[in-house]
Amino acid sequence: MWGFFPIFIFYLFLFQPQKKLINSAESCVDDALLGLVRASGGLSLLKGHRVVLRSDLENLKGKVALLSGGGSGHEPAHAGYIGAGMLSAAVAGGVFASPPPGSILAAILSLHNAGASGVLLIVKNYTGDRLNFGLAAEQARNQGVAVDMVIVAEDCAFDQPSKAGRRGLCGTVFIHKLAGALAEEGCSLDQIVSKVTEILKRIGTLGVSLSPCSVPGCLPSFDLPPGDMEVGPHDQPKQPIASAAEISTATLHVCVFSLFPTGDCVVVCVNNLGALSCLEMAVVTRSAIICLGNRGVVVARVMSGLFMTSLEMAGVSLTLMRADKETLRLIDAKTTAPAWPNLSNVCLSGRSYITEPQTTIKRPQDEKHSEGPLSPVMHKTLEKICSTLLEKQEELNSLDRASGDGDCGNTHAQAARAIQEWLQGHVVPGCPGKLLSVVAGLVQEKMGGSSGALYSLFLTAAAGHVTEGRSNAAAWATAMNAGTEAMKKYGGAAPGDRTMLDALCPAVDELIKLATAPSGGHMAVLQSAVKKAASGAEATRDLKARAGRASYISPNLVSLPDPGAVAVATILKTILEVLEGRK
Amino acid sequence: MWGFFPIFIFYLFLFQPQKKLINSAESCVDDALLGLVRASGGLSLLKGHRVVLRSDLENLKGKVALLSGGGSGHEPAHAGYIGAGMLSAAVAGGVFASPPPGSILAAILSLHNAGASGVLLIVKNYTGDRLNFGLAAEQARNQGVAVDMVIVAEDCAFDQPSKAGRRGLCGTVFIHKLAGALAEEGCSLDQIVSKVTEILKRIGTLGVSLSPCSVPGCLPSFDLPPGDMEVGPHDQPKQPIASAAEISTATLHVCVFSLFPTGDCVVVCVNNLGALSCLEMAVVTRSAIICLGNRGVVVARVMSGLFMTSLEMAGVSLTLMRADKETLRLIDAKTTAPAWPNLSNVCLSGRSYITEPQTTIKRPQDEKHSEGPLSPVMHKTLEKICSTLLEKQEELNSLDRASGDGDCGNTHAQAARAIQEWLQGHVVPGCPGKLLSVVAGLVQEKMGGSSGALYSLFLTAAAGHVTEGRSNAAAWATAMNAGTEAMKKYGGAAPGDRTMLDALCPAVDELIKLATAPSGGHMAVLQSAVKKAASGAEATRDLKARAGRASYISPNLVSLPDPGAVAVATILKTILEVLEGRK
Repeated sequence: MWGFFPIFIFYLFLFQPQKKLINSAESCVDDALLGLVRASGGLSLLKGHRVVLRSDLENLKGKVALLSGGGSGHEPAHAGYIGAGMLSAAVAGGVFASPPPGSILAAILSLHNAGASGVLLIVKNYTGDRLNFGLAAEQARNQGVAVDMVIVAEDCAFDQPSKAGRRGLCGTVFIHKLAGALAEEGCSLDQIVSKVTEILKRIGTLGVSLSPCSVPGCLPSFDLPPGDMEVGPHDQPKQPIASAAEISTATLHVCVFSLFPTGDCVVVCVNNLGALSCLEMAVVTRSAIICLGNRGVVVARVMSGLFMTSLEMAGVSLTLMRADKETLRLIDAKTTAPAWPNLSNVCLSGRSYITEPQTTIKRPQDEKHSEGPLSPVMHKTLEKICSTLLEKQEELNSLDRASGDGDCGNTHAQAARAIQEWLQGHVVPGCPGKLLSVVAGLVQEKMGGSSGALYSLFLTAAAGHVTEGRSNAAAWATAMNAGTEAMKKYGGAAPGDRTMLDALCPAVDELIKLATAPSGGHMAVLQSAVKKAASGAEATRDLKARAGRASYISPNLVSLPDPGAVAVATILKTILEVLEGRK
Repeated sequence: MWGFFPIFIFYLFLFQPQKKLINSAESCVDDALLGLVRASGGLSLLKGHRVVLRSDLENLKGKVALLSGGGSGHEPAHAGYIGAGMLSAAVAGGVFASPPPGSILAAILSLHNAGASGVLLIVKNYTGDRLNFGLAAEQARNQGVAVDMVIVAEDCAFDQPSKAGRRGLCGTVFIHKLAGALAEEGCSLDQIVSKVTEILKRIGTLGVSLSPCSVPGCLPSFDLPPGDMEVGPHDQPKQPIASAAEISTATLHVCVFSLFPTGDCVVVCVNNLGALSCLEMAVVTRSAIICLGNRGVVVARVMSGLFMTSLEMAGVSLTLMRADKETLRLIDAKTTAPAWPNLSNVCLSGRSYITEPQTTIKRPQDEKHSEGPLSPVMHKTLEKICSTLLEKQEELNSLDRASGDGDCGNTHAQAARAIQEWLQGHVVPGCPGKLLSVVAGLVQEKMGGSSGALYSLFLTAAAGHVTEGRSNAAAWATAMNAGTEAMKKYGGAAPGDRTMLDALCPAVDELIKLATAPSGGHMAVLQSAVKKAASGAEATRDLKARAGRASYISPNLVSLPDPGAVAVATILKTILEVLEGRK
């Protein structure tokens, strides 16, 4: 009997209402309308109804008002499209349910009472919406209101739509915008209806979804096995999931061929059905633009985002609208509607979208350098540092195994080998700053990890302070200090955090004295700095890690010194030995 | 052994990479950048790098340029915020990975070469970003570029952040906007850094997620059991999921108390982490505004949408920024950045967001009417229609069981009882149009379903054509025709679709003859119309349903007439009988 237990758990997992961030399934539609209205300075709620109105109704006087609406769950449609230059009002029904005629009538009368010269209803082609908006329209007409209706039905899922006709989908948003711009310009109700009726013939939409959505408090609205996707309405056969390019091509094939001659100019809306990530949306957008370009279609404008959703459905719909100059002018017209995107008014096809870099960035390690008097000693120092780090590889790894991922020796060895290789094929520049930049470049590219970035930062920040003309002890002191400061600033660690800074900072505090020390005292300063580095590294045994990977390890586990600090102390000691002539 | 099979299926379901609309995991970042750039007239891609630039770089001359960036997967951040008045460029890394210093440097140099007076790097506080942006900044500085960096670290998940500091989250978008407006105004690099540094102290963010996200090609990034949610970073203990109000209160409690004295003025960003539905977003937005109002905080502006996502994570973050007049001026300043929302510049707190209806809509059935000469016959007709429909209830249900949901008799009976009840308490108005409106109102409210809406439409459209002064046979003919046309127009069906229109239309085609018939011939027209209705209803036996619920049933199953058509024929026959004095 317990053999069924996992099946039970499986079903529990599959068949429980989706987690949602709401207060209750009953209140979610009203809560959402209030949320939108309270967050948008230009919107207002009609008391007693699920009707959102422009808060500046006085600006409708003498103009045609536009009303749309439908079931909730398709946000930002339709209330998000209310504003100057778009809708005047929107009526919301329950989730996926048509709004009641009484509220539609109340909205029409509010617009009429505000002085609108007429009211145009923009309705998506669903039986409930047609009937309820139609009923309210007839009632308003009986009360002397000039009212008309356009029905949006642009779904391309079927070659031969059923008697009910094509569904009204995201193309509705284009109608909101175009009719809105016409109304704002002062066109009459008849003019708007006649223009919109023409435009409606030039719009097509097809959608694809990877997952169902679920009405608040209910189970998912349909079943979609993993690996399958759905094209068009839910009652169609499922298909195996395809790539963004394949989906765009197939989807646009349907829209383009059913509606558009090749070579036409279009506005495209790539609409997130709810839960598709913005990354995927941008990938699909690229595929759609490429696919249209391949067919010789001119892409004038692209809208990509959330325009007509189905709750949290993961999917996308593509809407195309054939556009002439006049259509583009209306699309580009200003609107204050909160959900209308910040579009540029540049024709996208034919524009150059790649910028050539004005300067090619040369890696310092590739540049040609000339030798100078300091080249031999710097060459020798670098060689010794590399060989020492390679000797210490296993010792550093071993220290790192106690507190990190055990590869501190390896990363230093990688840097050492990269420098050795470079030394074989290049001249060491006479300018110390240039050499530091070369090493910074090598380390950034070959050492990897945070250590690579930190050493590279140190060297890059130091490089500017020691040039061929200015490379005395004081300059080196300034350079070492600048490098250390950059490491602290960008790395976010400080001495005491059990990092390489615990060796570096005490040493640099000594090295600063080079600036003021008499020329005979330089070597003594250097010796003292190396001692400080060694004792600083040793003292990390007692420190709790507060930065870097070691900070994730329990402090009890670490009783060895920090390998990064040991490496720094080792490097400084090697430099001293070379300068003292001992290596 | 097979007992484990369901467990296996369960794990397969849980642990397979998320379905995604991409072309490949490897190409998705570059595909997405191309998608954004090709869809946005103001953006351009720097060749050889994941760097997006303003396409009008010439407009940067003499101004401070702003560069941001970071791992991909947080779209529309950061490239969506490029435009006049916001960022000049953005660098993208792989999904959730820091961008390489070489590309950051290339971006800085492009801006410098365009003539920018300086470059400000806006960096979120993650070690990789700090180091890589820091390194590029130092390299640029060595090449003589005036460059500075601000680090955004506004996560409020911890009272005491670790050494690495607070994370940089959605507050970064505010910095993009404010610094962008300052740069556009011509402020110097130092001025911008100093103002932004002050503003950074006044921003706080806290996030909540209901589901993990998954990097393309990988398993979900963390595990979140159904019913649990996560507050702050992934390593924190999970909590049982709460309501939108509770979450807003708790989240804002943290932000408000850690950063803001009561009574302050704030800008709020309600940020969709990726896959939350727009409905939920609006619910959370309302809760946040109410919660702030309850604390006496003035809410000046609210942004609600996708600003800084984590792929398809279902969750929300709330960001608060204390705002003075100057901050609001910068928030309201114009920008061409495609991801910046269409905000109104009205202070939200204190404004009235409820509109009182100017006219209360009276239901026609509640209005007071006065009797007239036609009242008695109309009263009798209505009474007889009601009693006939109640007699036929079971017959209509039985017809409907063959083709619909078996309640056609019930819905007609509901209408009949509502009319009977109304007749008991009211006077039948002398104006026939008024009576039709009353019946339309009763039917709309009490009959329910599509039939209720369709009858109501018929009656409402007819009502305007028969008044007390004009109720002759011609007027009735026009009224019946107008009602039928409205039913056809809004219902989307036609004769032949096996609906009530198959009885109504042939009858109305006869009734139209009333307009021209000699006054002695009216009854003959009426008799003929009733016959046509009956034969039309009978003929629906042979029709395939193409509209209404019956259209979902296989045609083989239906050999009875359509109940809606039968009901219409019955009603017309009853009217005739009353007028003939037979009932």
